[in-house]
Amino acid sequence: MKHTFEYRVPYADTDQMGVVYYANYFRYFEQSRTEMLRALGVPYSEMERLGFFLMVSEAQCRYLSPAHYDELLECVTWVSARRAASLVLDTEIYHSGKLLASGHVTLASVDAQRRIIRLPELLSKLRVHSEK
Amino acid sequence: MKHTFEYRVPYADTDQMGVVYYANYFRYFEQSRTEMLRALGVPYSEMERLGFFLMVSEAQCRYLSPAHYDELLECVTWVSARRAASLVLDTEIYHSGKLLASGHVTLASVDAQRRIIRLPELLSKLRVHSEK
Amino acid sequence: MKHTFEYRVPYADTDQMGVVYYANYFRYFEQSRTEMLRALGVPYSEMERLGFFLMVSEAQCRYLSPAHYDELLECVTWVSARRAASLVLDTEIYHSGKLLASGHVTLASVDAQRRIIRLPELLSKLRVHSEK
Amino acid sequence: MKHTFEYRVPYADTDQMGVVYYANYFRYFEQSRTEMLRALGVPYSEMERLGFFLMVSEAQCRYLSPAHYDELLECVTWVSARRAASLVLDTEIYHSGKLLASGHVTLASVDAQRRIIRLPELLSKLRVHSEK
Repeated sequence: MKHTFEYRVPYADTDQMGVVYYANYFRYFEQSRTEMLRALGVPYSEMERLGFFLMVSEAQCRYLSPAHYDELLECVTWVSARRAASLVLDTEIYHSGKLLASGHVTLASVDAQRRIIRLPELLSKLRVHSEK
Repeated sequence: MKHTFEYRVPYADTDQMGVVYYANYFRYFEQSRTEMLRALGVPYSEMERLGFFLMVSEAQCRYLSPAHYDELLECVTWVSARRAASLVLDTEIYHSGKLLASGHVTLASVDAQRRIIRLPELLSKLRVHSEK
Repeated sequence: MKHTFEYRVPYADTDQMGVVYYANYFRYFEQSRTEMLRALGVPYSEMERLGFFLMVSEAQCRYLSPAHYDELLECVTWVSARRAASLVLDTEIYHSGKLLASGHVTLASVDAQRRIIRLPELLSKLRVHSEK
Repeated sequence: MKHTFEYRVPYADTDQMGVVYYANYFRYFEQSRTEMLRALGVPYSEMERLGFFLMVSEAQCRYLSPAHYDELLECVTWVSARRAASLVLDTEIYHSGKLLASGHVTLASVDAQRRIIRLPELLSKLRVHSEK
């Protein structure tokens, strides 16, 4: 399953090149994965209340074409891999059907003391999206 | 006493007008007050470890002239008022001797449960800078 | 006229006190005023393309109660004053009907060379909201 | 040549897990590469004035151990690859001698119209650091 999150680029996110500053795409990845989890019935805020945390252990993004102020971006996120204690989520960012950026984030499953634990049952609904 | 903190503007802080985005000045205020407290021998990180917190209850900034990428800013901070359970810290931001922005932040003294408490003894060294 | 903009707090906006970092409210003010202008038929991105800019000359916020991760905030913005070459926009931020923060931003009307100019005709639809 | 840049983590950079939010490491990468260029006598702000731009085309970071508020980080940056029209810069982030994160950024050489151009002569001093 792929989930789409829409986001309007604020002035705050641009830099003096007139485009979105590169680090901000990782904010978009976060917002997009949060909405994917909510759509699956597992709000991340509730996971944390239950003592389950997802900690970023790796992140990567390729920038193909810049995003600009006031553009309405489409952020498409899906699970690309699932292991015993981690998930890989891929995100692609589009504007008007054009791919601007694509990347992924690896999330480690940890408890409140930041110890690695198996992915909680809660996330059993998360299926790997097999073909891109 | 006035304390000066120097900060080099990164690309991250600029926006598409080619100047520092207005909300970022409040980051500079924070960095500047942290260094003032450290210089007085009261690192804020230690205050928190002892259970004392300073929570922003009000903040204001006037923007006179824009700051730009790669400029080395001088942030001058001092205590402009001191009450039983709060402090007002003023900050002025300069570049090459020119005043770019000035503002203040009111900090409420709270405990770990966010209840208002008297300013801790630790901060007794903080004197109000009487004349600007 | 008052305009309401909804925003879901991402992890990115929180700090180690477990609440939204104070400077981020000014981002919300920006997003809220942009949507107010769009609702009035004057997208700010178009204003800039026509050579009209609104530059922040002053900003202020009072923090009454903290906003938290994943809360859906309501940002209510209106014009509180209108002068020949500037506007004052007030914003209140609510969660579940509770007022969390309120503030304002003064915007100066400038041209592409950052010279003060009269507010453009485009903005004639912006009426001062007389009573709060 | 490896260049070291020191940075004190502000409250602004932390999130509610009590650690530095993952996207902020890319800000540190930027600040660190800017200081490396300055140390080599090629301030990036001057490159831009001469019409040469470096645009991020890819970025990646692995997170080994979290950085915290008020820690003084050491960001070590070097050129790990150099091609006709791009550079790869690696950065490692340390605290008290412990490696917290490592990553890289690929920068494409472009002109003011964002067309790919050969790396400018200015950057001829940038040598690939052969052994890590």
